[in-house]
Amino acid sequence: MTATLLYWGPDDTRAARWQALFAARAPSITFRRSDDPGDAADVDYLLSWQPPDDILGRFPSLRAIFATSAGVDQFDLAAIPERVPVVRMFDPQIEAGVVEYASTAVLYLHREFDRYRHQQHTRAWMPHAPLPATARRVGILGLGSLGRAIARRLVTLGFEVLGWARSAHTLPGVACFQEEDGLARMLAVTDILICMLPLTEATRGMLDRSLFEQLPRGACLVNMGRGGHLVEADLSAALDDGILRGAVLDVLDSEPPAPDHPFWSDPRILLTPHIAAMTNPDTAFDVLMANIERDRKGEAMIGRVDRWRGY
Amino acid sequence: MTATLLYWGPDDTRAARWQALFAARAPSITFRRSDDPGDAADVDYLLSWQPPDDILGRFPSLRAIFATSAGVDQFDLAAIPERVPVVRMFDPQIEAGVVEYASTAVLYLHREFDRYRHQQHTRAWMPHAPLPATARRVGILGLGSLGRAIARRLVTLGFEVLGWARSAHTLPGVACFQEEDGLARMLAVTDILICMLPLTEATRGMLDRSLFEQLPRGACLVNMGRGGHLVEADLSAALDDGILRGAVLDVLDSEPPAPDHPFWSDPRILLTPHIAAMTNPDTAFDVLMANIERDRKGEAMIGRVDRWRGY
Repeated sequence: MTATLLYWGPDDTRAARWQALFAARAPSITFRRSDDPGDAADVDYLLSWQPPDDILGRFPSLRAIFATSAGVDQFDLAAIPERVPVVRMFDPQIEAGVVEYASTAVLYLHREFDRYRHQQHTRAWMPHAPLPATARRVGILGLGSLGRAIARRLVTLGFEVLGWARSAHTLPGVACFQEEDGLARMLAVTDILICMLPLTEATRGMLDRSLFEQLPRGACLVNMGRGGHLVEADLSAALDDGILRGAVLDVLDSEPPAPDHPFWSDPRILLTPHIAAMTNPDTAFDVLMANIERDRKGEAMIGRVDRWRGY
Repeated sequence: MTATLLYWGPDDTRAARWQALFAARAPSITFRRSDDPGDAADVDYLLSWQPPDDILGRFPSLRAIFATSAGVDQFDLAAIPERVPVVRMFDPQIEAGVVEYASTAVLYLHREFDRYRHQQHTRAWMPHAPLPATARRVGILGLGSLGRAIARRLVTLGFEVLGWARSAHTLPGVACFQEEDGLARMLAVTDILICMLPLTEATRGMLDRSLFEQLPRGACLVNMGRGGHLVEADLSAALDDGILRGAVLDVLDSEPPAPDHPFWSDPRILLTPHIAAMTNPDTAFDVLMANIERDRKGEAMIGRVDRWRGY
């Protein structure tokens, strides 16, 4: 199997890692990097977190674009010809990382480490009787493969787990909700809400005041989706008004946030810099190669984005 | 079965909860409270976190002392006659709470929420590639029932789990070490160390500089044992010198710590006010009653303290 793959991205270290993997494990594929892309007309595959503009004119032989991430909202899908599949990355290490991050954030809020951190800051030694996990209701927005993996782990940890998606799901030990009315019913009984939705026109700005007001008073938010899901000013106001108690955010609308962004200094918000999970080229390589082989044999690739849904 | 039980403690709410449980579920037992103890000569059982002094002279009919906690280092065992058994509390809710707390603390350190909290404070958006749980080695000091329960949960979470106790243990998926030389071998390969030891003359001050220096540089500490296990000044120095990276402490030598205690303002230490687990009278009641019934039948009670070992 011969083909030409162009890795498009600014990070030399990651480019070098991918290059070494292709050299060692798929030498028949010509690997190129964006710092020395060669003739664009030869390129069969693009591998990128954010592909270049003008794909149609620039890469006439392009057979597919592989995202290095599970989400593809950073792609301008309208600028990519329909005939070129866009493929999301299902690196097993992404799933493990996302599940760990969600567990950490949920336990952090559940066991009130945020509250005790603040008490420490104010030199207050004040115990609060801990609620058992069985009495804490965690609702997951989005039941794609990552949302489902989080749900399974939270069930193992003893939480009461709920999940919502547009379409119907059945998951062992998880109360599943669907469509608009299901969303309202789940929010009404959710103490900790995790956003795992894809970012689309339908979900942009969904984490807003009207949604927060449907949660029990003093609920908490974990955003592991995209910054665009959250109306940031509404979160600050909901925390001020006691509608929400705390939040853990791994994504923001603008990353990094501006130096004067109010979240930096808000003790009720824990910010992490988009680290819930990172694609590991070593484990992602096999997933990518399996898809290239499927494409060469004319089979459907795993993770192909539905242009109409946007994920 | 008739008997008289005296609840000894300053907390009215907790006393009232125990009183209500005995009234509803064991009316044949006469329940008294320390605020109205009646005739001390009638008392068969004491239930207390910290029993009164002069037990020998004061309670001539005493058959057993039940701790409301899993640990009994707060008891002056030397002042309690050998013939009166001291019994630790094995409330299932304590186990669940301890397991949750340990998972929260380990994940918090593993996913570097402490580091990101500090970066947020300094307005730095700086991702660090996350290490998977499979690459993180968590060592547990103490393999009593609570230490073993923690080990099982951490195995489920994907960590590489190690455990040490004075005596030999075999636990599925856990590398077990014993005695002095085993301790050194475990410490050498432990990234996150959890102290779950009982506090005895043999373990007091064990978490000191010489122990920290046996860990890989930059390791973390979780103390869920007792404050007396930790040499507090040695922890500060080890953090200053980079020997340790961070710590989560649920117990301190003096609780609450003095207003000028350096841990209050140390961003590398997360302090929680002894809340890993609290005995819940509702779940502890059955455990206590089962032991009283055992005693009435002349059977050995579960959790009886070995005076020689001190736990």
